[in-house]
Formats: sequence, structure tokens, C-alpha cells
Amino acid sequence: MRTSTRGDVDPFIVMDVMEAARQAEAAGRHIIHMEVGQPGTGAPVAARAKLVDELSHPLGYTVGLGLPELRARIAQHYQDWYGVTVDPKRIVITSGASGAFLLAFSALFDNDARVGLGLPCYPSYRHILKAVGLRAVEIRTTPEGRYQPRPDDVAAHDLDGLIVASPANPTGTMLDRSALSALAEACEASDAAFISDEIYHGIDYDKKPVTALEVTDDVYVINSFSKYFSMTGWRVGWMVVPKAHVRRVERLAQNMFICAPHASQRLALHAMDCAEELDANRSVYAQNHQLMQVGLREAGFDKFAPPDGAFYIYADVSEWTDDARAFAAEILDEAGVAVTPGLDFDPHDGHHWLRFSYARSTKDIIEGLKRLQDFMAKRT
Amino acid sequence: MRTSTRGDVDPFIVMDVMEAARQAEAAGRHIIHMEVGQPGTGAPVAARAKLVDELSHPLGYTVGLGLPELRARIAQHYQDWYGVTVDPKRIVITSGASGAFLLAFSALFDNDARVGLGLPCYPSYRHILKAVGLRAVEIRTTPEGRYQPRPDDVAAHDLDGLIVASPANPTGTMLDRSALSALAEACEASDAAFISDEIYHGIDYDKKPVTALEVTDDVYVINSFSKYFSMTGWRVGWMVVPKAHVRRVERLAQNMFICAPHASQRLALHAMDCAEELDANRSVYAQNHQLMQVGLREAGFDKFAPPDGAFYIYADVSEWTDDARAFAAEILDEAGVAVTPGLDFDPHDGHHWLRFSYARSTKDIIEGLKRLQDFMAKRT
Repeated sequence: MRTSTRGDVDPFIVMDVMEAARQAEAAGRHIIHMEVGQPGTGAPVAARAKLVDELSHPLGYTVGLGLPELRARIAQHYQDWYGVTVDPKRIVITSGASGAFLLAFSALFDNDARVGLGLPCYPSYRHILKAVGLRAVEIRTTPEGRYQPRPDDVAAHDLDGLIVASPANPTGTMLDRSALSALAEACEASDAAFISDEIYHGIDYDKKPVTALEVTDDVYVINSFSKYFSMTGWRVGWMVVPKAHVRRVERLAQNMFICAPHASQRLALHAMDCAEELDANRSVYAQNHQLMQVGLREAGFDKFAPPDGAFYIYADVSEWTDDARAFAAEILDEAGVAVTPGLDFDPHDGHHWLRFSYARSTKDIIEGLKRLQDFMAKRT
Repeated sequence: MRTSTRGDVDPFIVMDVMEAARQAEAAGRHIIHMEVGQPGTGAPVAARAKLVDELSHPLGYTVGLGLPELRARIAQHYQDWYGVTVDPKRIVITSGASGAFLLAFSALFDNDARVGLGLPCYPSYRHILKAVGLRAVEIRTTPEGRYQPRPDDVAAHDLDGLIVASPANPTGTMLDRSALSALAEACEASDAAFISDEIYHGIDYDKKPVTALEVTDDVYVINSFSKYFSMTGWRVGWMVVPKAHVRRVERLAQNMFICAPHASQRLALHAMDCAEELDANRSVYAQNHQLMQVGLREAGFDKFAPPDGAFYIYADVSEWTDDARAFAAEILDEAGVAVTPGLDFDPHDGHHWLRFSYARSTKDIIEGLKRLQDFMAKRT
């Protein structure tokens, strides 16, 4: 049967790493997982208990934009966290950030539109754009620019839209208020849509992340319950859109998704009241964040932008290899630590980068760092 | 901010009906709901009880193609229901049938591809196609053809793909083995992709529905846990694809969705072992199916194709109106019965059709039919 060119999407290399790690474990080895991008914790316990009580209801479709009480609760969240007033009507509950991207792209762009993203970045931006007939325009970034796009990239690349992430995956760097503001202005000047991926908000350390809503209403802000709220498998997130776009996004959501999973929406509502458990998760990440920066440097991996948030460190390993994939395989094989080669995040320069995730327990991080240090001491 | 033309999607008229019904109820009136397309029942009770036990697990991401045990269980289902052997590797768990359509369209079609569908049909086919930059090619159907596309439509419309549904929404008609086979052959002859929507399988009455997998492997078969399995709000479905397409669909699924909701996948697995409760639901539909065909005719609505399955009757009301929307409003207002005007399903001829749903309780159906009969007796 026929196939499309838009469906010719690169494989995820991290999947091969995960499969190799799984095989090693099946063969009896103990592996430390620094390749995975999800919390090891589940949804907050108190939230799950509330959901159990609600499972006696039918939980049929919700309206396309999501449960009104969840939309209102998220508006309150913007007030609480950022002091920003957001009309609940502008908030759209989505099937994860993934669903939000699909909705945003349909609402904003026509076939072959040019949508910019700074490399390295979350690989699915590129792949979803291609899968729905749009063009991902890859923007080179610099260590001095902390791997984020710059305002003059918008006109220079003739963009129809720009996606930024702060804190970013895989680098963990953030955009401050003035950087976000300059990017928003550059987009407005070029009539390019501005999309701000804020899914790692709440997983931050020394500095508080800024939401793009603090600098403009002319933006699609995408967020998720998967990271800070620790609800990966439930596939629920949200998007804040300009008021004039709400009806358009509602119609698209009704057709493309009908609604986000109802039970997940209920669970998300309850999770938003579980700050204590969630902040305890965050303090684990904060401890890991300190240990990783020191420990990776001790192992010799010292070329990385200090991460402001998320649970990743993206390190330049060109001193040792020009084949990050083989290097990751060697680290898994000899040190028993699974790490992600950079090619998923940057198809051009990723061959000499590794991403280290510290989303799991501090005990695992300590053991993983020790193994990495021993491995590198022997190797170099 | 800029918007796209692909995002200019028609509003759902049924949403206006639902809102009008809600307002009538808020004003104290009792309304019979013949507009809704979802079971009033929830997921099977025993399945929900099993899920409660599993909520103590983190339920993080599953692999992109879905839980292996669920894929295997669905393969068993094809054996049990149709006597067809399907390799579990060909089964992809999706975020509802909606997610399956998005995946299928990306895997199969490039920008502006021509994808055919027989009118009347499920409105989201047209709207999703447009939302992802493809062209919905509307095929006129006939009462004699029981509102289904014919093999010669494929070449006549120069199609890159064809979507059929059996049992269909809104008409409830089915395609038998020879009709499916002829359509599959016509698609193959034109190198058009063949997509078979089978979400109403299991909600059938006198004749057993045929899966396209009985006649060809060169097809994308889409199904859902929303209808027979009564799990609408959980957003989980599945798709069977040709073996050569599995890797391509897997990569798309990883990027576009990460995975279907994990808890929903667990619940679906358990629901598949709840035949007794589900068949009891079906026998309610079967009873309604009889009552509706007799009762609507008694009311005067006698121009419809006898439905083979699903829980809808689509009736030609041109004898009374050329404005189905106004007619539906009149029925709601005077009879207290909410029904759906045909325009959602057929933008050209829908102005003189109504869809009557019988997904709710038999008690409601009896009362709704009585109200319709009284209303029509007074009106005519």
C-alpha cells in the first residue's frame, strides 16, 4: 500500500538505548537509567485516591475544551505561580503536550509553513511538524546563547512560527523575561506565531521560570501534567491561546480529539492540590541537580550549559568521541549506565553530545555518577 | 496573531442542539436525548474494579504501540469474533479512533492528497483531513446504495485514499463482504489507501458485521473502545495496519502521541473480558433498535435506510422542512426531544435530514417516541 513522505520520520535513538538497557537487565545486569525523560514517581497519592471515588461515574466525553473546573483551576495556578491573570476561557485542556502541539499547528499553519526551532531541541517538534505537512526550520544555537534561538533568527529564517522551550530539553536552559519579550516582539514584527513550551515549569532550581504570558497574550503557551505533576502516562496537558483563537481551537479539538481523557482530567484537577507531595518530588530533583553538576564534572564531562531547570544535562563529549551512539553503547556496556546520544535532539551536531537525565531517585544518581567516574577514569 | 486556513473548521451543529437542550433542562424542562452519540453506560464494572487495584502503580508512559498484552488480546478478539488471524505486531493502540485517524493520515498521505468519503458521514473525517492539510473529497451516495461509496468512485474521483464506515454513522448501514472486497480491489487498482472505520462493530443486530481484514490485509482498520466497550471518555482505540507499515506508524505514534493513556489501556484490557455486561448493553440497543424503527414510522418519519448497526437512524424529513436546523429546534422546543440536524453529516443535503440516536435507556426511547408521535400528530 502507498505511504507518504510526511510519515518518513526518523527513529528515536533513545528507544534503541532503552531496548539495549532492557536486554542487559533481562540478562541479569543492574542498569542505572539516565536515559529516560520521565519521573519515576506516579501521580500524587491523594489525587489518585480521589479518582478512585469517582470511577463509579460513567466518565463519558467531556466538552472539547475540557472540564470547566480544571480550566478555572489552571487560571488560578497562573495567579498563584506567576501573578498573571488569565481568563479561564483561554485555557484548553489537551491530550498531553503532544495533543497541544497538534492543535496549535493546525490552528496556526498551512501546508509547508516554516516553523523554527533552535537545535538541540525536543525531537518530536521536528517530527510532528513534518508528519502534518509543515516544515521544521532548524536554527543553529550557541553555547553563549545558552542553546536558545535569538530574536533576529525569526526574520533571518523567514519564519511563519517559532517554538521555544524554557526550561529546555535537552539543555535545561531557560529564557528570562527580556529574552522571551524580545522573541515575542520579533515574532509579532514578522507575523510569525509564537509558541512557548513550558512543560518543565515547576522543575526549576535557583531561578523561577517566566511564562510567556507575563510578556504577551499573543502566544500559544503549552504545558503538561506529565512533569511537575508527575502524570506522564495519563496524557493530559493544557494550552493557553489568544482570546480570538479560542473558538477555532475548540472546533479543531472537538474534531481531532473529541476531548482529553476524562479520568485524566479529574486526576489533574486533584493533583493541582497536592503541592506538598509534588514539591517533595522537586526537592529530589534539586538534590540530583547539584550532585549531577559536580559529579559529571568529576567524571570529566564538564562542557555543558548549567541547567536552570528540567532534569537533564546536555554535555559536549567531542573530546572523546565523534560517535555519541557508540559512546553511549560503550557506557551502557561497561559502566551499566544508560544515557541518550545527542542525535535525537540535534541531527547535525548531536553526534558528539550526550544527554544525562536525573529524573530518578537520588540513590540511583549517586550510583550512576560513581559508575561514570570509574568508567572515565579507566578509559582516559 | 496569524491563523491558518486549514484550521477553519465548520462548527458542530449538534453542539448548539446540546447547548439548547442543556438550557431547557436548566429552565426545568425534561428533555429526551436523541442527539448524543455516546452510550449512557460507563466502562464495565468489573473492569473498573480491576483498574482501581492498579492505580497504586505509577502508570507512566507505555511504549508507543501500546501495551503488548492489550495488542495480543485484540488479536485474540479478531480470532474470536471473526475467525481471522491477525499478527499482534500489526495492532497499534491509539488515543481513541480520533488518534488513529491522525496517525493513519500522516502515514498515508502527503499535502493536498485527495481522500474520499461518502456523504453522509461522521463529520470529523472531513474536518481532520482539512486540519492536517489534506483534501476531503465528498462522494454523493444513494438510498439504493444504502449511503455507501461504490468501487467506481475511487477512480472517478481520482482518490489517493478512501474512508468507509460499517456500520456507518449516521445511517447505521453496513458493507457486506462482497462490497468491502470490491472497494478494497478498487483502491488497490488505483493505488489508493483503504481505511475501514469499524468502531460500531459489536453494536449490530440481525447481521454480523464484516471486518475489512476478512477480505484484505492491505487496509488500515480503525476501531475504538468507545462504543461496544462503552469507554468513551477514556480515549483509547486501536488500528490494524499492513505489516510493512508498522515501523512507520510506530515512529509517528511515538512522536505525535508518545502513547495512548496508560490507565485507559489497562481498563480496555479488562473490559475485553466483560462480555456479559457488554452484551447486556447491546441487548438494550437491540430493543431500542426495534422500537425506533416502528416508532419513528408511526410518527411519520418513514424515509430511512433500515439500520444494520450502530445506534442511529438517519431520516429524510424533506416532506416537512428544508431547514433541518429549525425543525430540530422546533422538536426540542415543542416535543422536548433533542435530535441532530443532518448538516453535520452532509453539508450539501443535510438540510432536510435528521439523525435520531437511540444510545440511551429503553425507557427514554419509549418516552421520546411518544413525544415525537404526539408532536407530529399535532403538526401535520
